[in-house]
Amino acid sequence: MSDHDAVEVITTKRDHGELSGSQIEWVIDAYTRGEVADEQMSALAMAILLNGMTRDEIARWTAAMIASGERMDFSSLSRPTADKHSTGGVGDKITLPLAPLVAACGVAVPQLSGRGLGHTGGTLDKLESIPGWRAALSNAEMLDQLESVGAVICAAGDGLAPADKKLYSLRDVTGTVEAIPLIASSIMSKKIAEGTGSLVLDVKVGTGAFMKDLDRARELASTMVELGTGAGVHTVALLTDMSTPLGRTAGNAVEVAESVEVLAGGGPADVVELTVALAREMLAGAGMGDVDPADRLADGSAMDAWKAMIRAQGGDPEAALPTSRESHVVTAPSTGVLTRLDAMAVGMASWRLGAGRARKEDPVQDGAGVVWHARPGEPVTEGQPLFTLHTDEPARFERALASLDGGFDIGPEGSSYAPGPLVLDRIG
Amino acid sequence: MSDHDAVEVITTKRDHGELSGSQIEWVIDAYTRGEVADEQMSALAMAILLNGMTRDEIARWTAAMIASGERMDFSSLSRPTADKHSTGGVGDKITLPLAPLVAACGVAVPQLSGRGLGHTGGTLDKLESIPGWRAALSNAEMLDQLESVGAVICAAGDGLAPADKKLYSLRDVTGTVEAIPLIASSIMSKKIAEGTGSLVLDVKVGTGAFMKDLDRARELASTMVELGTGAGVHTVALLTDMSTPLGRTAGNAVEVAESVEVLAGGGPADVVELTVALAREMLAGAGMGDVDPADRLADGSAMDAWKAMIRAQGGDPEAALPTSRESHVVTAPSTGVLTRLDAMAVGMASWRLGAGRARKEDPVQDGAGVVWHARPGEPVTEGQPLFTLHTDEPARFERALASLDGGFDIGPEGSSYAPGPLVLDRIG
Repeated sequence: MSDHDAVEVITTKRDHGELSGSQIEWVIDAYTRGEVADEQMSALAMAILLNGMTRDEIARWTAAMIASGERMDFSSLSRPTADKHSTGGVGDKITLPLAPLVAACGVAVPQLSGRGLGHTGGTLDKLESIPGWRAALSNAEMLDQLESVGAVICAAGDGLAPADKKLYSLRDVTGTVEAIPLIASSIMSKKIAEGTGSLVLDVKVGTGAFMKDLDRARELASTMVELGTGAGVHTVALLTDMSTPLGRTAGNAVEVAESVEVLAGGGPADVVELTVALAREMLAGAGMGDVDPADRLADGSAMDAWKAMIRAQGGDPEAALPTSRESHVVTAPSTGVLTRLDAMAVGMASWRLGAGRARKEDPVQDGAGVVWHARPGEPVTEGQPLFTLHTDEPARFERALASLDGGFDIGPEGSSYAPGPLVLDRIG
Repeated sequence: MSDHDAVEVITTKRDHGELSGSQIEWVIDAYTRGEVADEQMSALAMAILLNGMTRDEIARWTAAMIASGERMDFSSLSRPTADKHSTGGVGDKITLPLAPLVAACGVAVPQLSGRGLGHTGGTLDKLESIPGWRAALSNAEMLDQLESVGAVICAAGDGLAPADKKLYSLRDVTGTVEAIPLIASSIMSKKIAEGTGSLVLDVKVGTGAFMKDLDRARELASTMVELGTGAGVHTVALLTDMSTPLGRTAGNAVEVAESVEVLAGGGPADVVELTVALAREMLAGAGMGDVDPADRLADGSAMDAWKAMIRAQGGDPEAALPTSRESHVVTAPSTGVLTRLDAMAVGMASWRLGAGRARKEDPVQDGAGVVWHARPGEPVTEGQPLFTLHTDEPARFERALASLDGGFDIGPEGSSYAPGPLVLDRIG
């Protein structure tokens, strides 16, 4: 016998009440067991979205989701652990250079990642374009690799926060994704259950991000930092700009190639800047703030860690990356300065070319994506290539081109361009 | 191919938008066909409850629910039709004397009724305590009886507004019952589909009613009047007091007996007053406002119509009514004047004695209920019977007594008692 029932919990939140710890524990457990039905949880999710939750409620909700599954434990490792989570951006390949870079500095990185849905790509989708690389590891394989290589990027197992997995699928079809309490608890329940000692959150803000608005992004970030800190995980968040896409590529294999450039000491300045900024936060969180990650990029040790990480998961870091069967070049319509490149436009184009998926069961194309040949602030000449679009299916070009339409501005020659900062704020 | 999908409709309402006619038609039709899932409709219902609907949206929603099923047609009858709907009260047996009274005045009454759930009784449950009486009629039987007797009280068939039936079951388990747009469209879709020419709504207000508050009751009433009028049904609403229970009985057979007293020219003054007030509205709506229903109570023709109506549905109006196996008397604790009798307390006691049901598949007891021997304003003497409780299961007395605890006040002898009006307002 329980002291609660679903209608009582739903109506408490519907009527702007605060859910008790006992109500939250009951409803998450009963939902995981199937006693609370999907239609009841979706009504509750909508009430939470519209009426909000206090920080105490969010902390209890997160704890209940963690308690629905297993918790990993990295305390047997010889080094401290640090993880990073990004809320998702266009061209956001940062995890690829970041994990081996931090590993090369002596901190273990247990990076459980996901596949992409919609216009932002997925880290696993990108890595799966590397011949032979596999995302699925057992917990034992993951621990072994963390000890031997220091970095793992792999798929989260089904054992972590199963309540979140069930709830996330439900939110996706019921218009209840955009609730800060549910976003924060979803992310943090998995990260806390994963057992990392410290965590850096990259909360994206701007047209190409889930959060378009700095205030909401700040609220999400501070909620997550409080949840992590309360659970004993050293947690910091950077709010970073996602009105312009990162680097010069969006897709899968094209982003791997750009990540390898960064590990080789080159690559686009913004990708290097954000990779190093996040690495510094991860190192500081793990108690190794005196190590400078820029040195490990320069001396090649980050590249060595990358190759070891790819090999340990069956991949060949020296193999040629797949390319698309078809490509299409968009040329600059005038001469001047690129003054705007919209992250959402580029993300949608890449998605429509086949780099992302509309439904979670869809495949992605390894070679699909967008390469842009100028970044905001750079001069362009009429007729020069501005974008190259890649796909295996030429029928996709038309809708991708429609996405790019209106997605950039070219100002007259000599136009000034004042870039905003990449890191907008730091919380923690 | 449809132009809509469920998430788009849900997020429109979630974000405080107005749903288009096309969105509403699509979502109701797709829900009836099972293409929109229960978890999606419950998220939408919660968004409607919290963010509201415009009158246009409610009218379209109601029309879409009517379009989900059949519409009845009484145009072949030789007389006009009028129906009444009550939002549910304690001791609310008014339909029983009202339907034959209005029929005796020459207006046909097609009264589709429901069974009770919770503390308010159901009209069909009450009538089913009459030996032989049956609630299920075919549409052809209903039409025949309307022509020959002039009054029918029967169960609504499954063909009317099936979308409402499906949605109501869902709302019941998802905490989304209490939304005025959904309550109004649920009631009015069935009443409009039923095909009555005119309709009187008895919207209850007070402790024993679903609407505790006059402003919300007025909003519900005016919404329903506008829906009915817009659909071509002459519609009027009375707002009536439900802080004190109606008459002197709450239950099943006990309420039938009290109704027969009214039809015989006696009965409690408040039951007579409300029956006649509603009858006047129904007659006026049917274009027969010159007939005085009080005459038909006095001359016995309403009683004749009652007996004919009961016989036509297999019942024996002369048979003894069932009584409970056990009874328990509560005596007055002091001498003075009864100054308060709470409708919710009496309704809960009756429900707990077995007159009502907790789940829709539960049986009810014909003989169960509460009889009160004083009404507010009447003198009481210490030790005299104040309540008689009836049930077949004596184990139920304890919880019923707990419901009555605090449910009445006795003031000192000579206390003044100023009864409020029974009819609080009229809309239409």
